[in-house]
Amino acid sequence: MQTQGQVRSANLAAVLACLRDGGPRSRARLAADTGLTKATVSSLVAELVERGLVVEGALVRPGSVGRPSTLVELDGRGFCGIGVEVNVDYLAALALDPTGTVRRETRLALDVAALAPAEVLARASALVSEVRAGQGAAAVGLTVAVPGQVQGAVVRTAPNLPRWVGTDVAAGFADQGLPVTVANDADLSALAEVSAGPHAHVADLVYLTGEVGVGGGVVTGGQLLRGSTGVGGEVGHLALTPGDAVCGCGRTGCWETVVGLAALLRAAADPGDPLRDPGRDLEDRLAEVVARARAGDARTLEALAGIGTGLGVGAAVLVALFDPAVVVLGGYFAEVGEFLLDPLRAALAQRVEDADRVVLSTLGFTAAVRGGAHVALQPVFDNPTSVPLLEAPA
Amino acid sequence: MQTQGQVRSANLAAVLACLRDGGPRSRARLAADTGLTKATVSSLVAELVERGLVVEGALVRPGSVGRPSTLVELDGRGFCGIGVEVNVDYLAALALDPTGTVRRETRLALDVAALAPAEVLARASALVSEVRAGQGAAAVGLTVAVPGQVQGAVVRTAPNLPRWVGTDVAAGFADQGLPVTVANDADLSALAEVSAGPHAHVADLVYLTGEVGVGGGVVTGGQLLRGSTGVGGEVGHLALTPGDAVCGCGRTGCWETVVGLAALLRAAADPGDPLRDPGRDLEDRLAEVVARARAGDARTLEALAGIGTGLGVGAAVLVALFDPAVVVLGGYFAEVGEFLLDPLRAALAQRVEDADRVVLSTLGFTAAVRGGAHVALQPVFDNPTSVPLLEAPA
Repeated sequence: MQTQGQVRSANLAAVLACLRDGGPRSRARLAADTGLTKATVSSLVAELVERGLVVEGALVRPGSVGRPSTLVELDGRGFCGIGVEVNVDYLAALALDPTGTVRRETRLALDVAALAPAEVLARASALVSEVRAGQGAAAVGLTVAVPGQVQGAVVRTAPNLPRWVGTDVAAGFADQGLPVTVANDADLSALAEVSAGPHAHVADLVYLTGEVGVGGGVVTGGQLLRGSTGVGGEVGHLALTPGDAVCGCGRTGCWETVVGLAALLRAAADPGDPLRDPGRDLEDRLAEVVARARAGDARTLEALAGIGTGLGVGAAVLVALFDPAVVVLGGYFAEVGEFLLDPLRAALAQRVEDADRVVLSTLGFTAAVRGGAHVALQPVFDNPTSVPLLEAPA
Repeated sequence: MQTQGQVRSANLAAVLACLRDGGPRSRARLAADTGLTKATVSSLVAELVERGLVVEGALVRPGSVGRPSTLVELDGRGFCGIGVEVNVDYLAALALDPTGTVRRETRLALDVAALAPAEVLARASALVSEVRAGQGAAAVGLTVAVPGQVQGAVVRTAPNLPRWVGTDVAAGFADQGLPVTVANDADLSALAEVSAGPHAHVADLVYLTGEVGVGGGVVTGGQLLRGSTGVGGEVGHLALTPGDAVCGCGRTGCWETVVGLAALLRAAADPGDPLRDPGRDLEDRLAEVVARARAGDARTLEALAGIGTGLGVGAAVLVALFDPAVVVLGGYFAEVGEFLLDPLRAALAQRVEDADRVVLSTLGFTAAVRGGAHVALQPVFDNPTSVPLLEAPA
């Protein structure tokens, strides 16, 4: 049986969730939506205002007669969640407020694989300090995205960042004084996709990210698929397509040897070509791939079509198993997506229904940090009494 | 906010779940386990006794001093759930009581594919009447397992029972006067595996059933994976292993053409061999396969090893994606399992960790009907007030 305090806390959370998921509304509407009495809703809203979580908004008149009522909405000013990403060739950080607005974001190209993890973590923490600075909102938590599988705060596998295996990532952010969660980048990106934007609240979604590696994040029945040891949804090292190239993980035939970034660049250009120069910024090289494809370069178009077909053949397996409403392509797949979708859907349609469910992400390379910041904010929504009462009620 | 009635109903359900999942216990222990007061627990137990759902059991003395207390346990006498299965070559039905005890079960070899669905449904309903008859327990619901994907009560796809597509299966059991649910056989088998026995309460489990077709049921995060259109977990028609045989579905390379029962029989025997005689009972033929393998027949052993390897290669994909604690092999896989596990685990170990997580089902061909009966009983556990008060309290 719940105590009175637990019931009130659950009701505060219900009001907050209603405002997050449904947008601003009157107290009367909140009462109707939550099944609580108007008196209870008024008391709950008053407490949420005192905690800096909601704010009174516009005055609206429901019709030609009747009393006008004040809309209540989430207050984005007081708090934020922070997401930070360590990837193979960049760092990124982002601050998200409870209304879902990005307050600050920053990204830094960095050859992470060539540096010591401790040095990278110091730089990443500096990036976190940067997005926290100069805004009134208090950070409530930090989530670190890594391109690998984690156990607790420690990297368990990271095929493209082998030096990171065994690293306690959370320890690198101890100076931030925040609760720190460490998670797989593709899992966080999948959460970002279902938390806002065109796929908000989709219960079954597969997110595929093309970077140096290929990652997958799966939401099924409204929950992130984690599996029994936390490594579920791993797609890059499956033999989803025929192929016998040797992978960074040491096995052959992994999907990322067929559809990963290296496979694209190898197919699109000979070794002397600037596209193959690891010293050049990756985004510049991808922009050049797109430019060549738009100019009709046959070799580039053929390379992209090969990636698209490989994605479609593998996606058929994922679609049959997870039956997602949507498959979202992120990372480099989204950057060159206009040339992938047709061959991808053609390959997919040979195996499963509704090939149009594959779409491109609109979050770009910020998906993982956005998902991380969302996760960092979640405790506030789960338990609104975890944030302190303001000293002077608004 | 919950009404008093809703709170009481939820508390009745909590007590019932505690007894189902943890076994018989005293009122004091129930109070400790549920967080309810002893007075509340006593009142709830009294109501559950009046509804015929629990019964007072043995008197136990906790130690050398102190008052003895009476154990409370689930009452299996009053109610049962019914599962019935329509498969390619048999019908089965089973009655399960709330304690998880099988009250009646029956199975009938039948060439379902050769008969009209209406005739098969009439026979299946007769089988349901048979397991309902002659026992005091009142059936509370019926679940029908079919080897295909369903939408509502209608078969949507059934590659090995094509005449059934579009059939309203629930309508065939209207004479039973029970709530009827129709579901995929492998999904129900997966639920049976996690509802009792060695894998009870496992949150992440993959069930693979070998019959004429190959089916899959996936439990992830404690929930059956359904997907956005209800067809998630479909494994038989994926190209999980290299192969180009034409499948019953019309495509090539489907996993069931490599590891299904037809593939085994084809590899194990030439056309004139009695193993290949479709007129012989399937269980007899499987018994003969096992007998030949135990006698060391080289061709039989090679055929079984081929199935095992194909299962391992495909299972590697499933293990990487779902990260299950256990993969359970059912149907014919379990019958011949002693010859499959070694080659299966060898193939699996090349791709994923912990190949020993693949085990054989102990439920035999009754998994689907057991899972179905479990599903049929669930409303009683969800809402104990859905069953009437007994006329004379026990």
